[in-house]
Amino acid sequence: MNIMTLETVSLDENENALLILDQTKLPGTVDILHLKDIRDIWDAIKTLKVRGAPAIGIAAAFGLYLAALQSRANNYPSFITGLKYAKCYLNSARPTAVNLSWALNRVYRVAETHSDKPIPEITDLLRLEAIAIKSEDTETCRKIGEYGLTLIKNGDGILTHCNAGQLATSKYGTALAPIHLGREKGMNFHVYCDETRPLLQGARLSAFELLADGVDTTLICDNMSSQVMKEGRVSAVFVGCDRLAANGDACNKIGTSGLAVLAKYYGVPFYVFCPASTIDMTIQTGSDIIIEQRSPEEVTEMWYSKRMAPEGVKVYNPAFDVTGHELITGIVTEYGIARPPYVDSLKEIFTTKATASNPSH
Amino acid sequence: MNIMTLETVSLDENENALLILDQTKLPGTVDILHLKDIRDIWDAIKTLKVRGAPAIGIAAAFGLYLAALQSRANNYPSFITGLKYAKCYLNSARPTAVNLSWALNRVYRVAETHSDKPIPEITDLLRLEAIAIKSEDTETCRKIGEYGLTLIKNGDGILTHCNAGQLATSKYGTALAPIHLGREKGMNFHVYCDETRPLLQGARLSAFELLADGVDTTLICDNMSSQVMKEGRVSAVFVGCDRLAANGDACNKIGTSGLAVLAKYYGVPFYVFCPASTIDMTIQTGSDIIIEQRSPEEVTEMWYSKRMAPEGVKVYNPAFDVTGHELITGIVTEYGIARPPYVDSLKEIFTTKATASNPSH
Repeated sequence: MNIMTLETVSLDENENALLILDQTKLPGTVDILHLKDIRDIWDAIKTLKVRGAPAIGIAAAFGLYLAALQSRANNYPSFITGLKYAKCYLNSARPTAVNLSWALNRVYRVAETHSDKPIPEITDLLRLEAIAIKSEDTETCRKIGEYGLTLIKNGDGILTHCNAGQLATSKYGTALAPIHLGREKGMNFHVYCDETRPLLQGARLSAFELLADGVDTTLICDNMSSQVMKEGRVSAVFVGCDRLAANGDACNKIGTSGLAVLAKYYGVPFYVFCPASTIDMTIQTGSDIIIEQRSPEEVTEMWYSKRMAPEGVKVYNPAFDVTGHELITGIVTEYGIARPPYVDSLKEIFTTKATASNPSH
Repeated sequence: MNIMTLETVSLDENENALLILDQTKLPGTVDILHLKDIRDIWDAIKTLKVRGAPAIGIAAAFGLYLAALQSRANNYPSFITGLKYAKCYLNSARPTAVNLSWALNRVYRVAETHSDKPIPEITDLLRLEAIAIKSEDTETCRKIGEYGLTLIKNGDGILTHCNAGQLATSKYGTALAPIHLGREKGMNFHVYCDETRPLLQGARLSAFELLADGVDTTLICDNMSSQVMKEGRVSAVFVGCDRLAANGDACNKIGTSGLAVLAKYYGVPFYVFCPASTIDMTIQTGSDIIIEQRSPEEVTEMWYSKRMAPEGVKVYNPAFDVTGHELITGIVTEYGIARPPYVDSLKEIFTTKATASNPSH
């Protein structure tokens, strides 16, 4: 199987369905879900059948289009009210990644802007907007990969956490984009994937997509990263991001902040990869980001397994943590590599992005 | 069940068998193994049915006695040769913990010292020596617990790694001894156990024995410790040790060094707990300690579960790591709390210990 041709999220325009590569079944089974009902799409996002900040944004954008397509409204006020309900509903599936609300708002705004048009015409504009979000994501990831490639050389060891790869985006990924792009150019890297408990996205997803792309991939447990860095096996740590505060504090999968502390201690550069849409300028520091708490069974039962912890034990299971900006060597976006102080460099990226998105300004 | 009366390792003198609480079946099943053949004892140590540096020393000491008891030698040279073979064999079960060879050598030396006595009499002296090792371990752990209790106050949050508890020793444990002793005195603590991948000793064993002793216990994944420390939930990190170099470098379960780096970063005191028998004065620094590498399946298959990583992925699975002495706030032994510089304080402990063990000096 060629992973680079496998679609994480796509729209089937013939059957009007959202197609999702079910990530809860990887690496054992490659199963494509066909979803039409937004309740199923909400569930797919909630239960991580589709996950990764950019991918859930794309899935939700297609979901909002499908909701519009299924609308029985025969006037605009009724149509836009239904759409707003669908937007809020899809947005409630997961609280942390900013891309989800960003993509939903972007599609919704199209419907608001074109209130004078017939409903079928508006609906088709929503379809085009969702498709645009997806194709822009591919282009964004390619650019992120190009910038990321300037940070490493052929043969380097890279440590990554969770999955900020193709499976988290429309193509290439964010933190793994330099690795996949490097493969296209005939390069190779030694990638250490930590397994990323509790849901094992590193073991199940990053290891899967890297091996499928022919990358020299080594799996470690989360608690082995200190030893791997100490032994000089990696020359950089590459991670993704779910929400980036204006000061550069990065909210990402639980365990990211620990890796950043270790990287600083061992003198290994630590890079955060994300599209500019992940930057949330309304949030000044990471302490304002809501951290999703997930169920204890994710920790105690493990996947498809018998219980491995005694009955009655409490569990603390935050899905994310915040890495302080002072631990981050650089933030790689489609507009370049931001360096400290991030308060200035992120503002610059945000301004560039605003100008790029609105050429008339 | 009262955990404090449950024996981790003991000798059944009626049936001449080593009794081991099978730790691979915890927390689901409390199963006592009756082992007579040293091949089964070797296997029990190798496969972690008994684990924890002090406990495997005690198990091996009883094992060497049972080997002597089963000896068919009718003269001393033949007896001591067989015993030496049994000692080397048992010692080969695991390479890292110094207590294994320490206990075996101690029992073996009794046989060497009493070469003039009849074989049944020597054999009985070996039994007494093995029993002494066990009862001294209980006393040692109690003293370690008393010193450890001076470092914390009632209600404190403590983070621990792997299992350096009663299940790793004859009683009380090392790192968990202050917690259990505190319980005897009516105190309580909030203990965070990280699960300790790949074999989940934190989730399966520490959480089990702490809950059984009525301790307020919270389970986290290994990659959550950074967040737990950042949120100020713990006032100290308590870990055990498998081999301590003369300069204070501490070899312990993989993941310990990462916790030490995090503790330093967040300003949380980091204490290593071990009996003085864990100090290996023949090893100058941690870099001279052999790190056991274990099988990839421990990481890829998880316990009793289906495979969670793609076929073909490489796995790096060191069982231990070395925590640099510069990251350690104090080393708690039965002779007190050693403080930096450890080159001096450990030498002092070692001298005290030598004097205590040999009152004639």
